[in-house]
Amino acid sequence: MVKIYYQGVPGAYSHQMAEIVNNFLWWNNETIGLFSFKDIFDSLKGTDDLWVIPIENSYAWSVHQNLYLMRDYDIKIIWEYYLPVHHCLAAKRKTISEISKVYSHPQALMQCEEFLKKYNLKWIPFGDTAWAAKYISESENDEGIWCICSEYAARIYWLNIIAKNINDQKNNTTRFLIITSSKDRKLSLKEKKGTLIFRVKDQPAILFKCLWAFATRSINLTKIESIPSKKGFFEYMFWIDYILPNDIKILEDAIEELWFFTTEIKDLGKYGQLGLN
Amino acid sequence: MVKIYYQGVPGAYSHQMAEIVNNFLWWNNETIGLFSFKDIFDSLKGTDDLWVIPIENSYAWSVHQNLYLMRDYDIKIIWEYYLPVHHCLAAKRKTISEISKVYSHPQALMQCEEFLKKYNLKWIPFGDTAWAAKYISESENDEGIWCICSEYAARIYWLNIIAKNINDQKNNTTRFLIITSSKDRKLSLKEKKGTLIFRVKDQPAILFKCLWAFATRSINLTKIESIPSKKGFFEYMFWIDYILPNDIKILEDAIEELWFFTTEIKDLGKYGQLGLN
Repeated sequence: MVKIYYQGVPGAYSHQMAEIVNNFLWWNNETIGLFSFKDIFDSLKGTDDLWVIPIENSYAWSVHQNLYLMRDYDIKIIWEYYLPVHHCLAAKRKTISEISKVYSHPQALMQCEEFLKKYNLKWIPFGDTAWAAKYISESENDEGIWCICSEYAARIYWLNIIAKNINDQKNNTTRFLIITSSKDRKLSLKEKKGTLIFRVKDQPAILFKCLWAFATRSINLTKIESIPSKKGFFEYMFWIDYILPNDIKILEDAIEELWFFTTEIKDLGKYGQLGLN
Repeated sequence: MVKIYYQGVPGAYSHQMAEIVNNFLWWNNETIGLFSFKDIFDSLKGTDDLWVIPIENSYAWSVHQNLYLMRDYDIKIIWEYYLPVHHCLAAKRKTISEISKVYSHPQALMQCEEFLKKYNLKWIPFGDTAWAAKYISESENDEGIWCICSEYAARIYWLNIIAKNINDQKNNTTRFLIITSSKDRKLSLKEKKGTLIFRVKDQPAILFKCLWAFATRSINLTKIESIPSKKGFFEYMFWIDYILPNDIKILEDAIEELWFFTTEIKDLGKYGQLGLN
């Protein structure tokens, strides 16, 4: 039995992700929501526990801080998962009133902008979708107070679902990474991708030189992002995700070459996709 | 006189940025806060008006949606600015009580985590820093209700500043871009950087080939980011910022070569840094 951490309150999309991991591990575990990213990293240390992190797309606001923490803590990515994001409109009482207001995270409100405008609904930005659901489920004056949250959150807080899948972009997904600080966790999924963070030397065309190591070996990259290193104002780090080549020696050679152009490389691990094989 | 739009309520960091632009343009303009990004893009169309957008760092949650809108709308970047982010702790009444709670945007709360833990303060995630300041300034039961916001927001809502510059990372900055849809706006600042968005052809090592065009011409890149194109699930676009070469012909050659490896290139403009010359 392990602990599966997520950031937020029960009903958050991250909680839903934690339960998917729990399901994959035969439901024998505890899912725990914490507010602070740093607390979760500290809790992971020296354990076999897991953490699900949203890394791309809708909830992109959490990314940068996580990138820094993933650089600074001793952790590995073990799985990834693409979670479909379907917002719903929910309320304690179904009655519509003239003073109806919709509470939700600003990002979720904007993702449902067309829907909200069509029905001329007023919105109130709130800290979190699930927290908005919790808030309206606990409010005594429940007339005309609605929220946008996941169906999962609506069920957890016993709210009525008024409309389903109201986000403007129907194929909205969030990519999650599942990480651990344990060195010998068994993976049981075929590794397909990997992630590296590196800090480059201060030379002309340095990123180009770094990518050379991958391009000449036909290693495909699926994500690249420059991140201010925070150590020097104009000093950059890079985050790259790559498709694992069949022959691991090819990857090792690429990383050996990469060292020539970098001052620091952190291997965040190789991982499979949960739900696929 | 032009309108300078920002996303959020008065006192937001984006509002502060809008006033800096207003100052630069001799205070002869109106700054307007709107909630929806899309509304701002629609308002800009066919006018001489401006919009200040946070693009990197602390408030990274707004980025992705803006990237898509900047791809789809006919706009140009005209300036950039690095705004220092200094959070303060503010309240209507200075008295400390045992039930004190701190309201703020989740990101701001996390940026002040060490401070909050040191003084053992409870936090409540809210939609926005300035909105939290507005909320506590309007609340009747004002005992023990605090917020984390900019000093600017604290002044606007007549709050007492209890502690200044409480963010854990003292050199916290947010990069803003100032954009317009006007074709003939005079820039009056020396252009130093530029931004391109492009969609690559489906070929091996395609990003490497694209960067070749810049590397072989000694054009330095200051930011690179891959973005899912939303048109196909595994199709990627790239956002790059480059340092403008002295000879514009060199840049034009690079872009001509870039066309060979891309299906779409959008030039988001060349721009100077506000406050520098």
